[in-house]
Amino acid sequence: SDLNLLLAATYVEDSIDGRHSDFKVSERHLKLYRLYQNRWGQAALYVFFFMHLCLAVFESPAVEGLEMSYWVTMLMETGILIFYMFRVTHISIFTPLTRFWSDTKNILIVILITITFLDMVIYIGLTESGIYSVRWSRALRPLFAVNFPELRQIRRSFRNLRRTLSDVVNVLFLFFFSLAIFALMAYKLFGGRGLTWVDGRPYFESYWDSIFDLYVLVTTANNPDVMMPAFDLSTYYVIFFVVFLGICFFIYMNIILAVIYNNYRKHLKNEVRKSVFSKRQQLSKAFEILAINIAGKKVVTRTRFVQLMKFLDSKKNPALINVFWIVLDSDGSDYLEKVEFLKVADLLNVEVSEVVDRTTLIGHFFPTLYYSKPSKLLCTIVKNRFFGIFFDVLTLINAVVIGIADNDDTWDDAAEWVFLCLFMLEILLKLYVLGFRRFFKKIWNVFDFVVIGAAFIMGLLEAVVADEQESRLSLDVLLVLRVLRLVKIIGSVNRFKVIVHTISKILPSLLTYGAVMLVFYYIFAIVGMEAFQGLVRFSGYDAGSELYCGNDRLRDSDFWRNHYCNNNFNDIVHAFIVLFELTVVNHIFTAFVLEVFILEYTASCQGFLETQMDKKIQEMGLSFRKSRPRAM
Amino acid sequence: SDLNLLLAATYVEDSIDGRHSDFKVSERHLKLYRLYQNRWGQAALYVFFFMHLCLAVFESPAVEGLEMSYWVTMLMETGILIFYMFRVTHISIFTPLTRFWSDTKNILIVILITITFLDMVIYIGLTESGIYSVRWSRALRPLFAVNFPELRQIRRSFRNLRRTLSDVVNVLFLFFFSLAIFALMAYKLFGGRGLTWVDGRPYFESYWDSIFDLYVLVTTANNPDVMMPAFDLSTYYVIFFVVFLGICFFIYMNIILAVIYNNYRKHLKNEVRKSVFSKRQQLSKAFEILAINIAGKKVVTRTRFVQLMKFLDSKKNPALINVFWIVLDSDGSDYLEKVEFLKVADLLNVEVSEVVDRTTLIGHFFPTLYYSKPSKLLCTIVKNRFFGIFFDVLTLINAVVIGIADNDDTWDDAAEWVFLCLFMLEILLKLYVLGFRRFFKKIWNVFDFVVIGAAFIMGLLEAVVADEQESRLSLDVLLVLRVLRLVKIIGSVNRFKVIVHTISKILPSLLTYGAVMLVFYYIFAIVGMEAFQGLVRFSGYDAGSELYCGNDRLRDSDFWRNHYCNNNFNDIVHAFIVLFELTVVNHIFTAFVLEVFILEYTASCQGFLETQMDKKIQEMGLSFRKSRPRAM
Ligand code: NA
Repeated sequence: SDLNLLLAATYVEDSIDGRHSDFKVSERHLKLYRLYQNRWGQAALYVFFFMHLCLAVFESPAVEGLEMSYWVTMLMETGILIFYMFRVTHISIFTPLTRFWSDTKNILIVILITITFLDMVIYIGLTESGIYSVRWSRALRPLFAVNFPELRQIRRSFRNLRRTLSDVVNVLFLFFFSLAIFALMAYKLFGGRGLTWVDGRPYFESYWDSIFDLYVLVTTANNPDVMMPAFDLSTYYVIFFVVFLGICFFIYMNIILAVIYNNYRKHLKNEVRKSVFSKRQQLSKAFEILAINIAGKKVVTRTRFVQLMKFLDSKKNPALINVFWIVLDSDGSDYLEKVEFLKVADLLNVEVSEVVDRTTLIGHFFPTLYYSKPSKLLCTIVKNRFFGIFFDVLTLINAVVIGIADNDDTWDDAAEWVFLCLFMLEILLKLYVLGFRRFFKKIWNVFDFVVIGAAFIMGLLEAVVADEQESRLSLDVLLVLRVLRLVKIIGSVNRFKVIVHTISKILPSLLTYGAVMLVFYYIFAIVGMEAFQGLVRFSGYDAGSELYCGNDRLRDSDFWRNHYCNNNFNDIVHAFIVLFELTVVNHIFTAFVLEVFILEYTASCQGFLETQMDKKIQEMGLSFRKSRPRAM
Repeated sequence: SDLNLLLAATYVEDSIDGRHSDFKVSERHLKLYRLYQNRWGQAALYVFFFMHLCLAVFESPAVEGLEMSYWVTMLMETGILIFYMFRVTHISIFTPLTRFWSDTKNILIVILITITFLDMVIYIGLTESGIYSVRWSRALRPLFAVNFPELRQIRRSFRNLRRTLSDVVNVLFLFFFSLAIFALMAYKLFGGRGLTWVDGRPYFESYWDSIFDLYVLVTTANNPDVMMPAFDLSTYYVIFFVVFLGICFFIYMNIILAVIYNNYRKHLKNEVRKSVFSKRQQLSKAFEILAINIAGKKVVTRTRFVQLMKFLDSKKNPALINVFWIVLDSDGSDYLEKVEFLKVADLLNVEVSEVVDRTTLIGHFFPTLYYSKPSKLLCTIVKNRFFGIFFDVLTLINAVVIGIADNDDTWDDAAEWVFLCLFMLEILLKLYVLGFRRFFKKIWNVFDFVVIGAAFIMGLLEAVVADEQESRLSLDVLLVLRVLRLVKIIGSVNRFKVIVHTISKILPSLLTYGAVMLVFYYIFAIVGMEAFQGLVRFSGYDAGSELYCGNDRLRDSDFWRNHYCNNNFNDIVHAFIVLFELTVVNHIFTAFVLEVFILEYTASCQGFLETQMDKKIQEMGLSFRKSRPRAM
């Protein structure tokens, strides 16, 4: 029975967290499985994985001033790989053997570890023999993320993206076919006419140039420059560009977006359906284990349910367990039938926190002071809405002061201290009136506390340390902190609250999407670094600095003329920046963000169970506070 | 009873065309109403409206070489306004008087006509007295489109757009608030540091410059140039731009798109619901008029239904009317109950054309020739799929020849004639085998016929006229026709057919949207012309041409350096081109196109009635060909 409870609890937990249960059924293996799912072990994996990615900062070509000998980075990487091996071995112990080796993810992790070790050995051998060698396995590092079960969200987004792209490929074909036709037309119409770009370069000189220039026009980067020489020759030629943009920009780009949106939604629906199905399966298993036969019907008794709840969280409030029971036992039979039990995972996903203390710490320890007349008057003042308006206006005045003060002025330093002290006073008053818990419950207060507190501490430090030692970095940070105070106003304007709430709802999905982008960025960055490092160098543009970014082939290029030398692949940071710039220009990626938005924006966030819970809590007159359910 | 039939038929027609029925019920007024709805009268309005807009080409500031005296254009405008008055008077006769004057649209048309006449009189008076004067009522011209009932599609799109924008305004506020905060930060961080843009202009010198430069970054037009000076100073500053783009580009732009999409869909649903309701109302009225009481139930008899059909289209095939009857009378009672009758509008919207002739003209007049053995062999060859593939390959070879031939070469002229003759042969063979009707039924054949035929005729003309007189324009058109041949290949590739079909479905909605854009363009263009005409002049960039676009204030400007002089408001054509360029840079408009796409793409196009029709037609062994229903 102890094993049964353990097994049932594991199924319920897996169903809550959306995991596949894949373990040998024995007490030892189950405990190992639960140990693997422990939050600290997972956090350690995140940290090690993050460190693994960060190694690129220190490996040659390293970020300036941070280069380490390859012995050091390889020692660190070995440690990380050993941790990976430890995790995989852990998985292999509690998973049935055939299941372990039939899972491509596990096989891929083993292969990735082997390949990385092999590459390290080859690199050491070649480098020590004086032969130039490339650590090519570095590009494979992000793939660990896609294969470890802990990061299955990224894997899922990845899969969705891949499927959607395979649907969109026909439209892309047609797009490039049309582009080719238009390029041929432009090449024959405008090429060989002696027309030139502003910089003197021949206009639509070759077919490939034509394709490239028209593609760039679709990204709108060379609009309207690309049409000016033809326009100057004859206004009729503008028709060509209007038709081209009409078809290739407006029509195709939108068709592509529409196809992406529709298919993404379709695939996502499938994923959700599958995950709901597996959830139900796991809860069914748990039910079969816990249920007993009463009057020919399988049901879970109250005792068993309380045991399960206590097992899942030994510190759970009995009153809350009671609420759960009443919500679940919707027919009031005092037993949970299967259909009722299946709702337990959704119910536990609703985070419920108990509101125990309504009195502040000061009110608790110094009641005579806190409940005295002047103190009560202070509370009324602070809770009045004009108190908030006063400090919002003060924030705006602060902004104006920041805007009009010159860098050479000194009067604004004094003003800054006045503002800072007033804002600190605001925070202290609010803390006094609301108490710690209620103050920090509001995200805007936390923001305020951090921004003002950090500025206060940095300001004090600056005042203590001699003025001459002020570093530019600390001044910049201080400035950013000052301007960030303005953001607080968003929290005070009612019409902005809905939007901010929407954004905060969307953020988790966006972060997953960002992680997928990171995988791509990292692979491209490593490949780019190995291929292009050192080809383009930045050393300033003043007299005496290297000409043409240190590469004579860039003589007379737009790249040099536009001062783009810092857009290079000389280290991982620069490579990431270049990739980011390219992403912004090619809006295709925006499409994916867009869908996430539309999906989340459309989806209603208030579930059925939550509402029911609210009702029951109200009915019972209990004082639980309901938080938003955890994001998937 | 004759009046009854007329009235019922009018209701049914209005319901098919989505009009509001608004007339006095008498034979005279009904006939006037139907006369107003006559297609020729509506076409005349379109033509006059188009001419009205086109007047801007000839009015000062006119397109070069097309300027007319204002007496001429005003005479034309007077004619157009008289036509408008004639139409409004027509409406006022058949509409109940109180209804006529309670409709803002009618009042607005009357006001617009009055204002325009007034403006003309004032203009003549002032100009003849030698005072400079502006024809400001010209900017109001597109508003006629929004108010005449014939152009209600545009009015509807307009209303949707307006409602959606009012929903999005909060997000826009937040966007500009964030932009203002970031601009303040950038101004304080980067301004006054002595940094410069590539062209030497000070970097983030003033607050307004900062706002402008960051706004341009959101349109991606100055990416990555805007971050290079800060990037060169310190890599840390890139964080600022990444955060800015992350919030203002990725997040806000997408929130805006999502809000637009959702609200547009919501408003459109309401519109559709309303129009369905009014349709049902009109059909109900028609039913009440036509129905008789049989066994206590109101029904329409077969005789009455045939009368109605004959009244609506006297040339309608009796067999087809029979099909309609069978489809509508779904319970086989030989009477139409109300619920059955209400489907008549949707049914009539399904365009059914009869396939009468399966023999070609040649086969009809020369059967011995057409059905002889060699002729039959020819038919088999032409219908073989390798026939199509052969000509597709030939098209590709043609493309390669166009691509590699130099302008100075002469061999490609000969090759061109060979290709042209071969393609003509293809068209003639297809015509022979398929006959005229079947050949021109396929849109790709029409395209082919036009492109090849026009090239053939122009080639012949060119050969007849002396070579020296070849104009550049005719050569350009010939070249475009040559390259357009390639487009035919899209029709041959199966994977492209779905996409092309989707686009063709979407096109009508897009045209409405384009008309709305035109309204905005026209107003802005007229205002821009009156404000900015002559300020910027284009006269080339060679030695001897005017410096700084003829405006000394453009000395040292990017505008002059980028050769943008032709981007001016000197006439309506130039003004439209400038507005188009700005539209492409500001992607906001793309959002609206996107929704149309998603909506149309998502919507299924196969209605219930259509399928039922197919079934019945098949059951009856009849030979009707079903076309797509008319687009809304
Ligand atoms: Na752009």
